[in-house]
Amino acid sequence: MKIILIGAAGTLGRAIENELSARHGIIRAGRNGADVKVDIRSIVSVQEMYAQVGKFDAVVSAAGNLHFGALADMMPEQYAIGLNDKLMGQINLVIAGQGLVNDGGSFTLTSGILGHDPIRGGASASMVNAAIDGFVKAAAIELARGVRINSVSPTMLIESAEAYGPYFRGYKPVAAAEAALAFSKSVEGAQTGKTFHVG
Amino acid sequence: MKIILIGAAGTLGRAIENELSARHGIIRAGRNGADVKVDIRSIVSVQEMYAQVGKFDAVVSAAGNLHFGALADMMPEQYAIGLNDKLMGQINLVIAGQGLVNDGGSFTLTSGILGHDPIRGGASASMVNAAIDGFVKAAAIELARGVRINSVSPTMLIESAEAYGPYFRGYKPVAAAEAALAFSKSVEGAQTGKTFHVG
Repeated sequence: MKIILIGAAGTLGRAIENELSARHGIIRAGRNGADVKVDIRSIVSVQEMYAQVGKFDAVVSAAGNLHFGALADMMPEQYAIGLNDKLMGQINLVIAGQGLVNDGGSFTLTSGILGHDPIRGGASASMVNAAIDGFVKAAAIELARGVRINSVSPTMLIESAEAYGPYFRGYKPVAAAEAALAFSKSVEGAQTGKTFHVG
Repeated sequence: MKIILIGAAGTLGRAIENELSARHGIIRAGRNGADVKVDIRSIVSVQEMYAQVGKFDAVVSAAGNLHFGALADMMPEQYAIGLNDKLMGQINLVIAGQGLVNDGGSFTLTSGILGHDPIRGGASASMVNAAIDGFVKAAAIELARGVRINSVSPTMLIESAEAYGPYFRGYKPVAAAEAALAFSKSVEGAQTGKTFHVG
């Protein structure tokens, strides 16, 4: 398969590439230093990415930023970061790609454990992650030509534990390589409309 | 209790008023013809509403628009309608009100069944409703002074079946009065971080 991997340079992205590249052709996309440059916050940038890449079989997204902050402090601008980037950025990949992906292809988005298991400072993350999982359920029943869509919802990665551990006390971290397996299940399996929880 | 009811003029809002007004003082808020005018899409408008109302014990929101349309046709602008209105509009009520509500008070937002049980044309609705339920889980663990937050997730209302029935074939509708009970449970009960599913 020809797979476009968004966020290829990140911790999760590198693990996904490692998992999938032995069996598939990976096009590494991201903001910097990838095969194709893309800013998923912009539908035009996403459309340009697809125009450059040509036909493809799968999109795997391990991209998307959002703001962490105390509920008491966050204003609409802070929520907008996650809505424009991790949420609509990933939805933009589907909006612009649903008509271009090959028959039987797939989209796999990344949400996260905070969508159902919250931490302090994570109100925006919980909102965005739950929104992604909700979108995937709905989009799956409308995609045509056997095209599928799933999300992967990982807990904190072992590789990120030094930076984020204090915020995730009591959460059992998983290796990025284990999370990458869920992306393989989504891309190489046959399920659709699912959220694969990892950890 | 002194309860601010947003979307008081709608089908659900009127049923909530009917349920709560025998026991509580209701301030009817909305875009038109209510005790207080508010456009929840604007944090400034929400702040002005709270300034007019003074101290209060609960906010009940039965407000929020979003766009229904085929997945193949919706562009970012159509998704933005629901993100700015039903999602961030209701979150604006919490952002601006969390420091003003009386100790032990509450916020009750409206999501909807499509967050987990999708229909064609409902990708934005599924995203937004799931986001609201996700936010509520997270916000509940950060609100101070015993302030609570829940969402009510109704199915299609009997009163709306003539207009929306064709889109919700097979969904058992509920009376707005039955959905209103869940708002009473949220406001007058003690639970927090919950989504009360109706139907």
